[in-house]
Amino acid sequence: MRSYEVKNRTNVDEIKALRLITAIKTPYLPDGRFDLEAYDSLIHMQIEGGAEAVIVGGTTGEGQLMSWDEHIMLIGHTVNCFGNTLKVIGNTGSNSTREAIHATEQGFAVGMHAALHINPYYGKTSFDGLVAHFNTVLHMGPTIIYNVPSRTGQDIPPGVVQKLARSPNLAGVKECVGNDRVEEYTRNGVVVWSGNDDQCHDSRWDYGANGVISVTSNLVPGLMRQLMFGGKNIRLNSKVMPLVEWLFQEPNPIGLNTALAQLGVVRPIFRLPYVPLPLEKRMEFVNIVKEIGRENFIGEEDVRVMDDDDFILIRRY
Amino acid sequence: MRSYEVKNRTNVDEIKALRLITAIKTPYLPDGRFDLEAYDSLIHMQIEGGAEAVIVGGTTGEGQLMSWDEHIMLIGHTVNCFGNTLKVIGNTGSNSTREAIHATEQGFAVGMHAALHINPYYGKTSFDGLVAHFNTVLHMGPTIIYNVPSRTGQDIPPGVVQKLARSPNLAGVKECVGNDRVEEYTRNGVVVWSGNDDQCHDSRWDYGANGVISVTSNLVPGLMRQLMFGGKNIRLNSKVMPLVEWLFQEPNPIGLNTALAQLGVVRPIFRLPYVPLPLEKRMEFVNIVKEIGRENFIGEEDVRVMDDDDFILIRRY
Amino acid sequence: MRSYEVKNRTNVDEIKALRLITAIKTPYLPDGRFDLEAYDSLIHMQIEGGAEAVIVGGTTGEGQLMSWDEHIMLIGHTVNCFGNTLKVIGNTGSNSTREAIHATEQGFAVGMHAALHINPYYGKTSFDGLVAHFNTVLHMGPTIIYNVPSRTGQDIPPGVVQKLARSPNLAGVKECVGNDRVEEYTRNGVVVWSGNDDQCHDSRWDYGANGVISVTSNLVPGLMRQLMFGGKNIRLNSKVMPLVEWLFQEPNPIGLNTALAQLGVVRPIFRLPYVPLPLEKRMEFVNIVKEIGRENFIGEEDVRVMDDDDFILIRRY
Amino acid sequence: MRSYEVKNRTNVDEIKALRLITAIKTPYLPDGRFDLEAYDSLIHMQIEGGAEAVIVGGTTGEGQLMSWDEHIMLIGHTVNCFGNTLKVIGNTGSNSTREAIHATEQGFAVGMHAALHINPYYGKTSFDGLVAHFNTVLHMGPTIIYNVPSRTGQDIPPGVVQKLARSPNLAGVKECVGNDRVEEYTRNGVVVWSGNDDQCHDSRWDYGANGVISVTSNLVPGLMRQLMFGGKNIRLNSKVMPLVEWLFQEPNPIGLNTALAQLGVVRPIFRLPYVPLPLEKRMEFVNIVKEIGRENFIGEEDVRVMDDDDFILIRRY
Repeated sequence: MRSYEVKNRTNVDEIKALRLITAIKTPYLPDGRFDLEAYDSLIHMQIEGGAEAVIVGGTTGEGQLMSWDEHIMLIGHTVNCFGNTLKVIGNTGSNSTREAIHATEQGFAVGMHAALHINPYYGKTSFDGLVAHFNTVLHMGPTIIYNVPSRTGQDIPPGVVQKLARSPNLAGVKECVGNDRVEEYTRNGVVVWSGNDDQCHDSRWDYGANGVISVTSNLVPGLMRQLMFGGKNIRLNSKVMPLVEWLFQEPNPIGLNTALAQLGVVRPIFRLPYVPLPLEKRMEFVNIVKEIGRENFIGEEDVRVMDDDDFILIRRY
Repeated sequence: MRSYEVKNRTNVDEIKALRLITAIKTPYLPDGRFDLEAYDSLIHMQIEGGAEAVIVGGTTGEGQLMSWDEHIMLIGHTVNCFGNTLKVIGNTGSNSTREAIHATEQGFAVGMHAALHINPYYGKTSFDGLVAHFNTVLHMGPTIIYNVPSRTGQDIPPGVVQKLARSPNLAGVKECVGNDRVEEYTRNGVVVWSGNDDQCHDSRWDYGANGVISVTSNLVPGLMRQLMFGGKNIRLNSKVMPLVEWLFQEPNPIGLNTALAQLGVVRPIFRLPYVPLPLEKRMEFVNIVKEIGRENFIGEEDVRVMDDDDFILIRRY
Repeated sequence: MRSYEVKNRTNVDEIKALRLITAIKTPYLPDGRFDLEAYDSLIHMQIEGGAEAVIVGGTTGEGQLMSWDEHIMLIGHTVNCFGNTLKVIGNTGSNSTREAIHATEQGFAVGMHAALHINPYYGKTSFDGLVAHFNTVLHMGPTIIYNVPSRTGQDIPPGVVQKLARSPNLAGVKECVGNDRVEEYTRNGVVVWSGNDDQCHDSRWDYGANGVISVTSNLVPGLMRQLMFGGKNIRLNSKVMPLVEWLFQEPNPIGLNTALAQLGVVRPIFRLPYVPLPLEKRMEFVNIVKEIGRENFIGEEDVRVMDDDDFILIRRY
Repeated sequence: MRSYEVKNRTNVDEIKALRLITAIKTPYLPDGRFDLEAYDSLIHMQIEGGAEAVIVGGTTGEGQLMSWDEHIMLIGHTVNCFGNTLKVIGNTGSNSTREAIHATEQGFAVGMHAALHINPYYGKTSFDGLVAHFNTVLHMGPTIIYNVPSRTGQDIPPGVVQKLARSPNLAGVKECVGNDRVEEYTRNGVVVWSGNDDQCHDSRWDYGANGVISVTSNLVPGLMRQLMFGGKNIRLNSKVMPLVEWLFQEPNPIGLNTALAQLGVVRPIFRLPYVPLPLEKRMEFVNIVKEIGRENFIGEEDVRVMDDDDFILIRRY
């Protein structure tokens, strides 16, 4: 008899078929712990809005600010509560190979459907080191490779992806380098999700990308669903663009955290080193919501401008 | 909207109704990590043998030799693979209140159906300290209190249980002190599971116990099922008794680990400070299996006497 | 060249020569972290009072409520600030052999002079398991074995100590079983420290014990110094006895924590599962201080009766 | 009485006065643990070669591959064994503010003389977030800020350093952006250490830098000492340059690890994601050693070309 866990492993084709994946926000309680009630509500709204999968503890979800036991718990929790309805992709990557191995084993053991793996940011390594790093985890289950040099300080060269593509477990690449790279991959049969919300419409319809791993869909899942499923739609894309630009004026998820608090769907709590956008920008957001239409955003409260004093910044948790 | 997790919390009556709960063994790989394939197979055999629930990471499962992230992962894994078929009770207790709180939150978050809580062993505390300790976790979900003074160095007095019984979350007590204590509780409407395999038949049929949290059922789940469900059966109880005595000649799970290895259902790997029973005792076990009947034990291989060299003792993992 | 660390390892004879060792209290800040300033002050008063060594993170110091990184940090801190003036003995024992190995390696690496090792409490093990457990750490440096069945649920039989005594690293035994056992060891050349403050005078002067590992010396180091160094002194011993009895009416360190708060030398903060002694007992303490003489206790403030509201109980930290 | 720890805190001027600081390599045992004996030997050779301080667990020392308890232990160990002879600067920075706070508290508690702090790499944050992040740790003791955008994906703008410079604890900046930035700081009274070995000579003698935090000095401490103390020396700088270029052809510490193994001063063990340089490059190193002179390198064995099979790559540890 084989392990139930291994027998039940998700087929990689189910991962390859995903078009709208949300890099889900992690909301907090006033003492800095996860606010699981708000989290469950966010996931619920993603399901209603048409997202097919979530990245748990991505950079958007501030995985880098979690201890690993929190992180794996959140993956297990998401699988347990929502795993039948959407795909749960755990960001079990790390710049430490040991940690990536440990977290990925644990993530699959608690039922995640796929792993997201980053190259070793900050520490960096050689071409051979990159291949060795990814090979320690690729055999464990369906895997998405994540390339974002503006964060990691190092591009994953296509030659590395080529080598990894020999494994049946490689589901594809979340690529942030741009549409030329997207096209290079999709021409060669590598599945790509855009990692840039501002480019994802074109990536999808002009460069062969499969879909998007999106930040913006935390706020307007229905619109992002349309952008990925409804055919080329330059008008809709233009309509969303001011929101995207607003979101990324500072390193993500600063904008997203600020926006979700103002929409009343999460408590206004930041784990440092993140701090809210300043008042002026918070006022801008209210206008953007009005332009795009409150009804396209998640939540049911009126959007409001929060005061500086409304926010809680957490140092120790 | 309330959290999915909270909404889905198991009703305490489902826990109270359980009769046969197995304190499941944790099997290991040669490097000391969990052997999840063997574990899943053990759980599968428990389901086939009629167990209704498992304690994950109890003293039998060597929770005391796990890091908490391993422990929570194993709970999440069990829920994910088997949670629809049997109840998963996480031993998230600790002698450190902080650890008990953290682990119990995490255990419920990944879907465990109930928590098992021990009093602070080794460190010990006062009557008021006991009540304060248990009250930090009792509100989180269905809870079984575990009293085993021979391990903890301190009896949980009935007065403490009385206070805890005011909470609707108290499912009952796993009691090892003896049948007088069992009767004291059951007369007062407190659900009790015997924590002593040698007494459980009498506890169940003569002293009002609900059932057993058993070590022996790891080996002979069908027989333990009969003892708990099939009515008073002194003959069967006597038949099983030599096995029970053999199992508990040294601190549990030394005997169980040795037995499962000889039955060929787990690798012969011990995490220190546990070491196998000596050869002479291992030979005795083979005779006990013959007496009781190989077909009543789990596994399909012939039982065999293992050599000293067959065992691997693990220090670092 | 050999490692500086190894070359500088403390000679076991320096450990064997110690007579007054204090199992030092760990004081806390209102958020539950260590209050290092108060800790340093406590150590300073021990030095002034004549203690020759401290146990860091013993059961008195609530090592069981620390994470290992806190525990090792506290050992390293103590060595760094006071290692030239007194001996630092880290309680790096555990009921998990892996944890004992890891902590003991780290403790010696940061400069502790000796390790205190407990047998596997709660989980327990066999005779062979005990020997195997201790042997994983004994080679690392000077070691004191700690026997306290009332906490561990299992006596360390003299046969185990006999086997360990073959190692030059065995400094001796902290024994709580009583003076017959003390005498059995000291007759056979095994160094013993009494682990019972109520027996230590007799152990020292009538049964051959080397000295004491004391809780009471946290409060009255000078008197305990006299008891261990000043020759048989039944009168002084009788004078101290009411304090000892008061301290141990509930599991240690409940009394000690209460006393130190009332002496104004630590903040009145308890990590659960410990809670202060009730008001009535707190009033008794003030009288005991008066009887014995405030000047014999550490600190300079008047002893006072604290209110229930003065105490802070910590659950998460 | 104030805490001994606080009273003994290093004066920031002692840190500002340092010229040659080595970002020390962490050597490993075959099971991936620290090889403390080799480490102590490396430190000893640094002292002999004229280094005045070490960075413990920097990117060179692979702090990003350590668990925090290992990291703090290594800081405590270094202080304990060598703290009287050289300054110990712990790289207790992190992209998680919580971790930076925790590690820095622990590092100072075990006696480190100063902290090195990086901006939040990978996760990144806003200007205000950077200031808030650093301000959580700056009050704890002497602090060096580390700016290396090629690793972090984000430059620390001089405006941030300006704000931090108001604290008496800011010892200075380890700057990798180039000599214009170095000059900008030194003109304004901010102490700078070059973080680029290829620029450090010019930074020191032409742009006002105080010294260097060096990788190359792991290999040739005496030569780096001369470069920092001996006055402008273009010839010596040119002599060292081929070694520097060889070292940084792949992300550091890949070259350094390879070099130290071939010099026979550390075991040829790599924690992934690092792998050795290929054979061709390893042969080049032997020639570089000959050119510069074996006697200028640490160690006493002949330098040799290692085979691929000589290296051990560690995944789990």
